[in-house]
Amino acid sequence: MDPGKSPLLTDLYQLNMMQAYLDHADTKAAVFEFFVRKLPARRGFLLNAGLEQALDFLEQLRFSSDDLEWLASSGRFGTNLIDYLRELRFTGDVHAMPEGTVFFANEPILRITAPLPLAQLIETRLMNIVQLQLLVASKAARMLLAAPGKLMVDFGLRRAHGAEAGLMAARASYIAGFAGTATVLADKVFGIPIFGTMAHSFIEAHDDEKAAFEMFARSRPDNLTLLIDTYDTQAGARKVVALAPALAARGITVRAVRLDSGDLIALSKSVRRILDQGGLADVRIFASGGLDEDAVTHLLRAGAPIDGFGMGTSLTTSSDVPSLDCVYKLQEYAGLPRRKQSIGKETWPGRKQVWRTYDHAGRMCGDVLSVETDQQEGEPLLHLVMQGGRRVAASPKLADIRARAERELMRLPEPLRRLETQNYPVEVGQSLSRLAAEVDKRLRL
Amino acid sequence: MDPGKSPLLTDLYQLNMMQAYLDHADTKAAVFEFFVRKLPARRGFLLNAGLEQALDFLEQLRFSSDDLEWLASSGRFGTNLIDYLRELRFTGDVHAMPEGTVFFANEPILRITAPLPLAQLIETRLMNIVQLQLLVASKAARMLLAAPGKLMVDFGLRRAHGAEAGLMAARASYIAGFAGTATVLADKVFGIPIFGTMAHSFIEAHDDEKAAFEMFARSRPDNLTLLIDTYDTQAGARKVVALAPALAARGITVRAVRLDSGDLIALSKSVRRILDQGGLADVRIFASGGLDEDAVTHLLRAGAPIDGFGMGTSLTTSSDVPSLDCVYKLQEYAGLPRRKQSIGKETWPGRKQVWRTYDHAGRMCGDVLSVETDQQEGEPLLHLVMQGGRRVAASPKLADIRARAERELMRLPEPLRRLETQNYPVEVGQSLSRLAAEVDKRLRL
Repeated sequence: MDPGKSPLLTDLYQLNMMQAYLDHADTKAAVFEFFVRKLPARRGFLLNAGLEQALDFLEQLRFSSDDLEWLASSGRFGTNLIDYLRELRFTGDVHAMPEGTVFFANEPILRITAPLPLAQLIETRLMNIVQLQLLVASKAARMLLAAPGKLMVDFGLRRAHGAEAGLMAARASYIAGFAGTATVLADKVFGIPIFGTMAHSFIEAHDDEKAAFEMFARSRPDNLTLLIDTYDTQAGARKVVALAPALAARGITVRAVRLDSGDLIALSKSVRRILDQGGLADVRIFASGGLDEDAVTHLLRAGAPIDGFGMGTSLTTSSDVPSLDCVYKLQEYAGLPRRKQSIGKETWPGRKQVWRTYDHAGRMCGDVLSVETDQQEGEPLLHLVMQGGRRVAASPKLADIRARAERELMRLPEPLRRLETQNYPVEVGQSLSRLAAEVDKRLRL
Repeated sequence: MDPGKSPLLTDLYQLNMMQAYLDHADTKAAVFEFFVRKLPARRGFLLNAGLEQALDFLEQLRFSSDDLEWLASSGRFGTNLIDYLRELRFTGDVHAMPEGTVFFANEPILRITAPLPLAQLIETRLMNIVQLQLLVASKAARMLLAAPGKLMVDFGLRRAHGAEAGLMAARASYIAGFAGTATVLADKVFGIPIFGTMAHSFIEAHDDEKAAFEMFARSRPDNLTLLIDTYDTQAGARKVVALAPALAARGITVRAVRLDSGDLIALSKSVRRILDQGGLADVRIFASGGLDEDAVTHLLRAGAPIDGFGMGTSLTTSSDVPSLDCVYKLQEYAGLPRRKQSIGKETWPGRKQVWRTYDHAGRMCGDVLSVETDQQEGEPLLHLVMQGGRRVAASPKLADIRARAERELMRLPEPLRRLETQNYPVEVGQSLSRLAAEVDKRLRL
C-alpha cells in the first residue's frame, strides 16, 4: 500500500469543511499560499525543493472506488460529498517559485487557486510533500557552504523518517549540490549518482581484516573505498598500504579509505601520513559518522585532510530543525482578500508576488513582498506552473534545478553564507499593508 | 510509485557487499541485532513499535523484473548477483520484543538470523521502518505521562516527513495511548479513531464568524467542535454561547471549542468562564498549536482548564529527538560471535536475551542483558516471531498492542514517569562480557 497515493492521506477536518462548503454552495475560487512564517534559528535562508512532487500529487489526485466506498460506508458524509469526490480532479492554477530558488520568511513559494473545497482538501498532503524537501535542501545547502570543494554524499536513508523521506532526501540534497547519495532507488527514479563503500559487518564477517579488504577489492574493484576503522584505524591504514601493491598487480586501484569513528582530526592526519609514506598519496580520505555542518566546519578548520563526507542522519532528518513553521493560508475567497488575526499568527492577505533585486556583483540585496499586481523593481520569483490542472511546461530537468541552486548559493549575500546569520531584508510593500488594513475594516468583528 | 515497495530502497554498499559475499560463497547464517546504543537526552525509556511493518517488509521482499532489469543494465553487478536477487525471498528467522514494550539502551528489540547477503540487504529499510515508529511512540508516551486523563490526538500529518511518516505516526501514537488521529487514512488502514474540527480558513471564507460557526454546525452536527481563535478568542467564545440555544433548538450540541493560538493559560481560563456563565459547562476546551510535552506540563501546572490536546509537529517529527542512535549490527557469522571495536562504537557480540524483573508492586526494577542461552531471573523479552520467513502466529491486534503499552507505562518505575530522568538499571550478564573477551582474543589484529 502506497500511503502517498490515497487522497485520504489528509486531515479529517478537510473533509468536514468540504462537507460544509458543499452544503452551502461555497465552491467559489479560493487562493491559498504556502509560506514559512519565520525562519528557524540557524537558517539564514531556505532553498526551495519539492515542487515537482507537489505537482505530481495534484495531477494524480483522485479518489479510488475503494476510497469512496470506505468513505460512504463510514456514515460520516453526505452523498453530495461522495459524489463530488468521485469526480474530483485538480483543476486549479498553481504559481510557484522554481525549485532551487533561495527564499525567506513570509515569501510564498506556492500559490493554489482552485474551488474552495478542492483547495482545502489538498492542504495537508501538499504541506507534507513540500516541507520535507525544503528541510533537506536547506540543510544540505548549509553543509555545502561549510565544506566548499568537498565531495558530499547523502548517507542518511536508514534514519530518515520512512521511505518517502529517505528517497526525497536524496533528491533534495542533490538539488542543493550534493554529489550524490547512497540510496540506490534514487538512481533508478531520478538518475542521481550513487555512492557506496562497505560496512563494518563485512570486515567483522571475516576474522582477518586484511583478507576482508582483499576479498572486497577483488569483487568491487571500481571506485574502491575501504572502511578502515572497524578495529584500529591506523592499523587499518597500514593494511591498505600493505595490500596496495598486490591489488595494483591485478589492476585494482584503491581510491579512498573511509573513517567512521574516533577523533577524525587526529585519525585523518595520521592516516594521511601513513598513506603518503606508503606511496598512496592519491588515495582520498572520506569521513562519515554522525557528522553535521558544524562538525565539518570544525574538522576543516583544524586542518583535517578529509576529501569527502558522508552526511547521514543530520541531513535526512534536518536534525537541528526537523520542521518548519510553514503554513498554507487562505488569502482570498470569492474575489475578496482574507486574513487570519490569531495572536502571533497574523497573515498578509491577497495574492502576492516576491520581487528580488541584486547588487552590481550579482548578489541578492533585498526582496519586496507585494500584492501580485503591484509591479516592483527587480525579478519576480513566482510564476504560473500549472493552469486548469495541467503543467504549463515540461518539468525542468533535475540537472537544471541543481544548476539553478548552485547559482543561487553563489548569489547569496556574504553574511548569509556563514552558518549563523539571518539578516536578509524582506520589505512589505505598501500595497500589501494597505490591503491588510482594508480587510480588517471589512470584517464584522 | 511506492518508494517503500522496492528493495532498491537500500544503500548501494549493501549490494556491493552482497556481490562480494556471493563471489566468495560467504552465504552462511548471520545474526544481526537492532538496538539503540544510547538513550537520547530526555528519554528515560523507549517504547517499541513498528515490528508489524518490519515483518510486512520482510514477507513482501522481492525484486520486481523492473528492478532486476535496471540493476543488470547498470553494469555494476555480476549475473551471479542478479540471479540471486531474482530468487530472493526472506527465508530467515526473526526474534523480537512485542510492540508496546518499554525498552532501554543496548537491548536488542529485533534479531534477524538469515544468510549473510540477505541479512545485509535488509538493514537499511528495516532501520528506516522501525526507527520512525520508535521515535513517535516514545515521544507520544512522554506526552501522555505529562497529561494523565487528557484526550490526546495526533494532528501532525502535515509536517511529518512524508507520507509514510505521517501514517505511521498515527499508528505509533495510538499504540502509545493517544485517543486517535486526524489522519483519515489511518482509520481506513488501521481502524484508528479519527478526530477533526475545522480550520481558520473556514472562518475566514465567511466575513461573519458567527455565521461560519452556524453553517459548520448545521453541516457537521456530530461531536461538534468550533475553532474560536481566528480573530478574537473571547469574542469567539461569546459567539458560541450566543449561538448555542438556536443550535440546541435544532438538536445540535456544541461539544467543544478549540484554541490554537495566544496565551493558552489565560485564554482557556477566560473561555471556561464565558462558557460556564453562558450555561455551557459541558462544552470541553481543546487546545492545539505548537504544543509538546513541556508546554502541556506548563499549561496543566498553571491550572489551564484544558480537556484535550492536538499534538502536531512535535509528535510526528519527535522534534527534540528526531533520530535515535539505533544500529543493526552483526553479532554472529558462520557460528562464531562477532563484534565491532571502533572507538566509542563497540558492540556486545552474540545472540542476546533481555531479562526483566519486577518489584512486589509490579513495577519494572531492572534488566539483565545476557547471552541468549544464559537463563537469568525474570521475564525474557525477545521471542521468535518469524521462522523460515513466515510469521509463527497471527499478528497481535492493534488494540492488544495498545493495551500492552498502557500496562507497560503503568509498570514504569516512578522516576521514569517524570520527563527528565534516566536511571533504569540494565546490567550486562557475565556470560556476555566473557563472550566479548573471547571474541577479542580470536581476532587477529
